[in-house]
Amino acid sequence: MSQKMQQIVLASRPDGAPSQDNFRLETEAMPRPGEGEILVEVSHMSLDPYMRGRMDDAKSYAQPVPVGGKMEGGAVGRVIASNSAHFAEGDHVFGMFGWATHSTADARMCRKLDPSQAPVTTALGVLGMPGFTGWWGLNEYGRPKKGETLLVAAATGPVGSMVGQLAKAKGLRAVGVAGGADKVALAKGDFGFDACIDHRGKDAKALRAEMKEACPDGVDVYFENVGGPVLEAALSMMNPHGRIPVCGMIAWYNAGGLGADAGGEGLTAPKLWRTILVNFLSVNGFIISNHWDRYPDFLNEVAPMIADGRVKYKEDITEGLENAPQAFMDLLTGGNHGKAIVKVS
Amino acid sequence: MSQKMQQIVLASRPDGAPSQDNFRLETEAMPRPGEGEILVEVSHMSLDPYMRGRMDDAKSYAQPVPVGGKMEGGAVGRVIASNSAHFAEGDHVFGMFGWATHSTADARMCRKLDPSQAPVTTALGVLGMPGFTGWWGLNEYGRPKKGETLLVAAATGPVGSMVGQLAKAKGLRAVGVAGGADKVALAKGDFGFDACIDHRGKDAKALRAEMKEACPDGVDVYFENVGGPVLEAALSMMNPHGRIPVCGMIAWYNAGGLGADAGGEGLTAPKLWRTILVNFLSVNGFIISNHWDRYPDFLNEVAPMIADGRVKYKEDITEGLENAPQAFMDLLTGGNHGKAIVKVS
Repeated sequence: MSQKMQQIVLASRPDGAPSQDNFRLETEAMPRPGEGEILVEVSHMSLDPYMRGRMDDAKSYAQPVPVGGKMEGGAVGRVIASNSAHFAEGDHVFGMFGWATHSTADARMCRKLDPSQAPVTTALGVLGMPGFTGWWGLNEYGRPKKGETLLVAAATGPVGSMVGQLAKAKGLRAVGVAGGADKVALAKGDFGFDACIDHRGKDAKALRAEMKEACPDGVDVYFENVGGPVLEAALSMMNPHGRIPVCGMIAWYNAGGLGADAGGEGLTAPKLWRTILVNFLSVNGFIISNHWDRYPDFLNEVAPMIADGRVKYKEDITEGLENAPQAFMDLLTGGNHGKAIVKVS
Repeated sequence: MSQKMQQIVLASRPDGAPSQDNFRLETEAMPRPGEGEILVEVSHMSLDPYMRGRMDDAKSYAQPVPVGGKMEGGAVGRVIASNSAHFAEGDHVFGMFGWATHSTADARMCRKLDPSQAPVTTALGVLGMPGFTGWWGLNEYGRPKKGETLLVAAATGPVGSMVGQLAKAKGLRAVGVAGGADKVALAKGDFGFDACIDHRGKDAKALRAEMKEACPDGVDVYFENVGGPVLEAALSMMNPHGRIPVCGMIAWYNAGGLGADAGGEGLTAPKLWRTILVNFLSVNGFIISNHWDRYPDFLNEVAPMIADGRVKYKEDITEGLENAPQAFMDLLTGGNHGKAIVKVS
């Protein structure tokens, strides 16, 4: 066992979009697992939009990462030392190991993986937090009904592609929004969206014109994970009694003070509120970590759909822990295709 | 039977707050009831905030009143001629008779009233649309639980006072917001609120400071009917998993374009959206007219509470149809105490 490990810490809080300066790669002594803990050699770590929120110190659903602290996140790896009866050396495991080559963790907070069932990286995406987010949000708050129209942005991402494929399987018209011709082709091809709008270079008005074309019967479920002009356009498309599950607002994550200059120029708070009122919308914010008790239901339903190809997934793997900051910055500007993962070892 | 009737029509659309110029009193020939219709002599008509929305031609849940058309609204009166088997001359009746001394109406759209059960004016307020709005919104979207804290603005109005009293009856802490010392006293005295905040002359920051005092455990249900700085302050008070039924936004009804200058200075769309997301809020817009199938359940539950004094109500009666426009303008600026009613005859 190597006596050193590497990790990436938050060097400083970003002012707007993060830059390399906000991260620092550190070499530390290898930690030792305490009572009930395991030591894991990380093979792959996850990059997710929510991590941007943890870099700020604004009040949120989770504590911010402290300056100087390890960047948080889900990861998979193998157990190299165990002080827990539940794990043996060599076990494949998922846990919140962070941006690091190695990590100790409370064994009760980790989940054993069976690599013969599905590749271990699926625990970071389609069968992990993002896929579960899509499944729960769509079913619990979206309440999809056959014949309705669903709209989802970041359509080729791990949440959006899950939402679109599940909606199709339930008999809805699934319309995506994505950035660039490649992603549009991916959404309509691999993921089977009925239509997909390229948001690049378009303001809310132009997006609305394309949404009208793609959603001739309006939008019943807008699965919201981006904010910004796409939200503004989508709101204007909502049918009466429409539902909006809200699990993210990536377009606004780098927005600093979330003021009027935050990219929501045309969308004021009164206008947003009025749309909710006059269309009888149901808007529900959620974070999937409040709902892990339903994770087995998700696995039971979706794992077979992965196995037989009804639900497809795509991974975008960057090599090397040291490249995680750049891959994360790319993710925030839509540079990735599919679930963003960093191969650590 | 007089051969003439009077009505108030929309003379022009208001630009911001309505003024007398936007209304016109007209004398017309007495209408005759067609097949299946009744002719009603109106005794009392209702004034409600939603009527402000009907004066604009913005897309909403209801058609706007056309310029030159009769102002719409609920009213009670007596049948003076009937072409329907369901109504006889002399019957007391509720219907959408509008701002008028007389009106014909499709008998199927009218409801017979029993004045021995409750004063007929209660059909406009506590046992009518506003009371039903409070009952439905609180129970269906507010999902109140014993021990939680409820916040509602316009606390002495017919919706707010219903919401507060029902919440108290269910074991919640009920906190109101109202304009002026008289209304604060009324809320805490007659209506039994645990606390009531006077919003007059206060910005969102000052309101928030008072809310923190009045709601030491935060807010679980914010019953939203006002918008503006009260909404801004209330949003900052929401507990995780809080619920916000939205049935109105009177502070913004006169706001014209609902732009950034509409009174929501500190509350941007991104900030509002982020609050929904990070607190896992459930926000539901609704209009009670979609839910009349539940009206009998409301009457069964609340009518006995009125009869035995568990739910109190207050009416603010203006004399004379010609004074309806001024009374309506007063309502929009909080000049009324209790349910606003105009005695027509």
